[in-house]
Amino acid sequence: MDHFPNFPFRYSSGFGRFAVMVSVAIIGASGYSGEELCRILAGHPEVKIAAVTSRQHAGKPVTEILPRLARHPAVADLLFSESTATAALDSGAEFFFLALPHGLAAEFARPLVEAGKRVVDLSADFRLRDAAVYREFYGQDHEAPELLAEAVFGLPEIHREEVVSARLVASAGCYPTGILLLLVPLLRAGLLDAESIAVSSVSGVSGAGRKAETAYIYSECNESLRAYGLPKHRHLSEIEQELGLAAGKPVTITFVPHLAPMTRGIHTTVLARPAGDPAALAECLESSYAREPFVRFSQALPDTKHVTGTNFCDLAVRTDPRTGRVILLSALDNLVKGASGQAVQNFNLMAGLSETSGLL
Amino acid sequence: MDHFPNFPFRYSSGFGRFAVMVSVAIIGASGYSGEELCRILAGHPEVKIAAVTSRQHAGKPVTEILPRLARHPAVADLLFSESTATAALDSGAEFFFLALPHGLAAEFARPLVEAGKRVVDLSADFRLRDAAVYREFYGQDHEAPELLAEAVFGLPEIHREEVVSARLVASAGCYPTGILLLLVPLLRAGLLDAESIAVSSVSGVSGAGRKAETAYIYSECNESLRAYGLPKHRHLSEIEQELGLAAGKPVTITFVPHLAPMTRGIHTTVLARPAGDPAALAECLESSYAREPFVRFSQALPDTKHVTGTNFCDLAVRTDPRTGRVILLSALDNLVKGASGQAVQNFNLMAGLSETSGLL
Amino acid sequence: MDHFPNFPFRYSSGFGRFAVMVSVAIIGASGYSGEELCRILAGHPEVKIAAVTSRQHAGKPVTEILPRLARHPAVADLLFSESTATAALDSGAEFFFLALPHGLAAEFARPLVEAGKRVVDLSADFRLRDAAVYREFYGQDHEAPELLAEAVFGLPEIHREEVVSARLVASAGCYPTGILLLLVPLLRAGLLDAESIAVSSVSGVSGAGRKAETAYIYSECNESLRAYGLPKHRHLSEIEQELGLAAGKPVTITFVPHLAPMTRGIHTTVLARPAGDPAALAECLESSYAREPFVRFSQALPDTKHVTGTNFCDLAVRTDPRTGRVILLSALDNLVKGASGQAVQNFNLMAGLSETSGLL
Amino acid sequence: MDHFPNFPFRYSSGFGRFAVMVSVAIIGASGYSGEELCRILAGHPEVKIAAVTSRQHAGKPVTEILPRLARHPAVADLLFSESTATAALDSGAEFFFLALPHGLAAEFARPLVEAGKRVVDLSADFRLRDAAVYREFYGQDHEAPELLAEAVFGLPEIHREEVVSARLVASAGCYPTGILLLLVPLLRAGLLDAESIAVSSVSGVSGAGRKAETAYIYSECNESLRAYGLPKHRHLSEIEQELGLAAGKPVTITFVPHLAPMTRGIHTTVLARPAGDPAALAECLESSYAREPFVRFSQALPDTKHVTGTNFCDLAVRTDPRTGRVILLSALDNLVKGASGQAVQNFNLMAGLSETSGLL
Repeated sequence: MDHFPNFPFRYSSGFGRFAVMVSVAIIGASGYSGEELCRILAGHPEVKIAAVTSRQHAGKPVTEILPRLARHPAVADLLFSESTATAALDSGAEFFFLALPHGLAAEFARPLVEAGKRVVDLSADFRLRDAAVYREFYGQDHEAPELLAEAVFGLPEIHREEVVSARLVASAGCYPTGILLLLVPLLRAGLLDAESIAVSSVSGVSGAGRKAETAYIYSECNESLRAYGLPKHRHLSEIEQELGLAAGKPVTITFVPHLAPMTRGIHTTVLARPAGDPAALAECLESSYAREPFVRFSQALPDTKHVTGTNFCDLAVRTDPRTGRVILLSALDNLVKGASGQAVQNFNLMAGLSETSGLL
Repeated sequence: MDHFPNFPFRYSSGFGRFAVMVSVAIIGASGYSGEELCRILAGHPEVKIAAVTSRQHAGKPVTEILPRLARHPAVADLLFSESTATAALDSGAEFFFLALPHGLAAEFARPLVEAGKRVVDLSADFRLRDAAVYREFYGQDHEAPELLAEAVFGLPEIHREEVVSARLVASAGCYPTGILLLLVPLLRAGLLDAESIAVSSVSGVSGAGRKAETAYIYSECNESLRAYGLPKHRHLSEIEQELGLAAGKPVTITFVPHLAPMTRGIHTTVLARPAGDPAALAECLESSYAREPFVRFSQALPDTKHVTGTNFCDLAVRTDPRTGRVILLSALDNLVKGASGQAVQNFNLMAGLSETSGLL
Repeated sequence: MDHFPNFPFRYSSGFGRFAVMVSVAIIGASGYSGEELCRILAGHPEVKIAAVTSRQHAGKPVTEILPRLARHPAVADLLFSESTATAALDSGAEFFFLALPHGLAAEFARPLVEAGKRVVDLSADFRLRDAAVYREFYGQDHEAPELLAEAVFGLPEIHREEVVSARLVASAGCYPTGILLLLVPLLRAGLLDAESIAVSSVSGVSGAGRKAETAYIYSECNESLRAYGLPKHRHLSEIEQELGLAAGKPVTITFVPHLAPMTRGIHTTVLARPAGDPAALAECLESSYAREPFVRFSQALPDTKHVTGTNFCDLAVRTDPRTGRVILLSALDNLVKGASGQAVQNFNLMAGLSETSGLL
Repeated sequence: MDHFPNFPFRYSSGFGRFAVMVSVAIIGASGYSGEELCRILAGHPEVKIAAVTSRQHAGKPVTEILPRLARHPAVADLLFSESTATAALDSGAEFFFLALPHGLAAEFARPLVEAGKRVVDLSADFRLRDAAVYREFYGQDHEAPELLAEAVFGLPEIHREEVVSARLVASAGCYPTGILLLLVPLLRAGLLDAESIAVSSVSGVSGAGRKAETAYIYSECNESLRAYGLPKHRHLSEIEQELGLAAGKPVTITFVPHLAPMTRGIHTTVLARPAGDPAALAECLESSYAREPFVRFSQALPDTKHVTGTNFCDLAVRTDPRTGRVILLSALDNLVKGASGQAVQNFNLMAGLSETSGLL
């Protein structure tokens, strides 16, 4: 904790607890992941929210735009600040959460890192190691390519050590988290035929963000199940990067995302062929996650309703002796373990707090 | 039409149309597919509903239990009959729709067929050609194995000729219809590697029937996406039977069904490897269904909301050049093209009516 | 039928039915009520759709924008026309359905009526008899005030005689239909204290139209119940006009509309004090609607799920002896009996067809 | 705090916080309010869950039945105990939450209170002061009428002082909370015509409990809005009791509850006539709740989605100058402020903890 010598203290409710408070800023809080960050950090016992920015709502009370949070002591008196790096730095925060569109996040990250601050970015901007892949999948040049080398892919269960000391963490996104938590341990252990991997995921509509598009209005999404984004979804780039690192060789997969009539939740079903004894897969996942606070491998099939509002990712495996395939399944809340909870988990590690602080 | 010489006539609304009316009975109408049969047949311009049976509701007005149908002239005065084959035969109907649990359907079918009636069974009882496979997947002996040889698998797009002249049609079910309409033409044409087929489907909750089980109450299904029935769902038996017939050799597939928070609709995503040029797949599906009234192959990705309440099944195909796989997609309403609409389509063929009568 | 001497004939499916076909045009078909009109009219046995217009989609195939309707013979080959009165008249249609925003509808209606055509307007433009009230509630001058005197308020159960011979019918809207069907017979019979009427309604989200506004995206509407538009909803103007006509004196009511997470359906609960014996209310409603094809008064409490997709409006009444109030309840589908089904019911009357044609 | 001298201490996550822990037992945890109690209390920083009982699941791990809570340190090792008062007392808990059906709760409460324990009952058993009213509304004799005199109606905003020192608190239920928070201050201040009150509420389906009844399965509740329980809902008894206390005279109201397709949330709309200046109502509510941590009176119309998962109740008022009525609106989460959160709020007061502990 020697990075952060001058924290204020606050008196918590209850029996005389004093806690060192870490000062944070949330950049871009009018979307769903920004709002969810506000919700989680407002209840975090070791965090002081120094600033919340919004281009659209600067000057307004935070609770006017996010009425769920009205009366929360941690945000009750906050106004939205201008969404500029300078204004954000003026808040005196030590940690900065970026809940911005890709491209814009990279623009903000540079001055913050240069000012010696530590950044958790929820966008895709720093997840890829290779600026050329970024250009291929996002159709634009990277705004801060010099930071790619040091940015850490923020999936704590896979990269915890690097997260702890990182200046810039690219918090892992929703589909990748549910897929990578299933596959990385198995590929590292050589238990899967890497060429056999086919992924089908179903997401709730909040994954599309708070966008006023006809495709996402209630009457278009209710009683509707549809695939989209075929065949080359943007998230494939970061998924395959991390799978390749785990396998020690390039991995290419098929990924079919779908939209379901629910607000939150992502369910992922992976079909693959085992390399060797299929029974080894369950053992590998069991032992990989036995001590993880937020990954629950169990006998029960995952159900998104058991993880919504939580930072958990539930996993299970089934074998299909008739075809020799294995069926790997996961469920998580796209706005929590798939976005803002994961960001706070990364932050907890960076700040030397308990990894679960504010998240249980 | 010489089977049915003595039809009554009725005067339709409008400009002097006289139509020969076919007399039908619906056996078991208190479940969702039975209710949907009532709805469709009540609006069918060439059908007279002679009887509707229900073990549970015998003696009550049909519209008391199915209030959606109140004031429909076709059912307004009907009472539920006892659910026995004898009572059903007394109605004088020529065609019998069985909307009963498996096992019970076979018990009813035998006396009706023996009495010279024609039967459309919505259950799984007559879909399998082999009583041993029935026992393997349903855990019980078949109640009328002598009828399996003549029963026709009631998927008109695949077996239209046999349906026309059948006495007993086993109307194809919800998951199988969405899967077989995608795969049968491609396997017949040798365009797929049959060993590569992996299927992921998502169904609305009405697929579970009108059952008072905790797993299906609203608060358990809303905001919930989950897989179930792994790895050997009962419907695999009929799916693989029909795929094997199409491929000319046994076919074994992986099938992962899921439940989504919607009432109706099944979306199916098939991943497979093409045998040869992937472009041939779209051509094959396009030409196979160009003249089919209820199968729509198009460039747009299928969406269950475009088929709910209709007898259509929408299809699409995408290729994934990165992995060499093809992605095949379909959507249908599990209670219409996946159950009662399909049954009426089969009936229309059997009765010599226009195939689309009552269904557009 | 002497108004329409030169109808084409078409051969319907089935047994030799020839029907005179009425030629119609749908002006503005890209919203929900326009789409629903297409759906209903495509299945109407006595209608030929001569044109469908859309400012936004002119030149495109109808089924590209409305994929639910693909393969429907009645619209399979139609392209959207320009949305002008001239283009609409060129179609040769005799009847014109206007599914346009208020203000615009009045602009279209004038040239059509002047050309001798008959018009069913789904907007609010011709529902009010008084242009001043229109200005008060809609904040703009009326575009065709000279037509207000002859326009008929298109609620067939209340104004059937006038509808039959009208040139211009202002088809009644969603909230008003559910409220007026409950209250008009009771006020006509003097059975209610007109000053005691308080109405609370709950609507599905399709009532807000196909609008790309953040307030109506899925994640904002799901798991959300909220009131809106208080205290002076626009529809109050037409509701109170019709209540006043029924009561023979001005009637002012409180009306609280709410939005619920469902696509279709409006449920209305009216609380009021009876004038005299409360038992007379049930008798009055029972006898008023005993022969109506689309209004079902029954002992069961109305449920929107029993009317969605249908042109029915379900009614019930309960007395509350503890307070002396009566509770009046109704349910209908806002897009059918509350919009497009009602429009077709009006059209059927105007065209001399069976009132239920295409609607059962 | 002198009642509870021997609390254990536990080390919280983070920076050296030691807290005195209050030991509690949850009686009946397999329903929705019991599960929600487990969730809230598992995250409560000053609570130790000593026992969780379930008749149905005794002996099983809590997290097997409530998989949402798996890995929560506070319940990770707990097994369900037998659901008897003796077993519950053996846990050594000082506070007991009863999440049981009415009737059964009273049976459990007596031995616990006699053993000197303090009880928060979530059922209706101790909300009524008069055993005769209980018999009238619940159709059975009260199981522990001698406790009615001392039981406190557990709505802290109305009865905080009595809750603090109570042995037995009857935590207020879902509909009553949303109605009483609106009306009690206004009736106390004489600002409403008590005879004019008419209430219409809409509840999510979790209000019906985790019951395997056909009426509550997904396909029956989705796309369904319906009233129920007319005209004399059981909760009227406790609502009218508390309204009468506030008004200083008997109050009789009309109450129409509805069911909407959502899991959580109750929205209430009250129509009434003011006694005097309608502007005084907003002032009264504003000042009554200005310092309440869980009641938010604001200009915005309440929306259930802003309170789900929280212990907040949102309020608003509108005047309808056209009719002279006022429209009072509220929204809360039926399982939190309407059940388990309220129970914990009552418990916090009883145990001398911060009222918001574990609830923000």
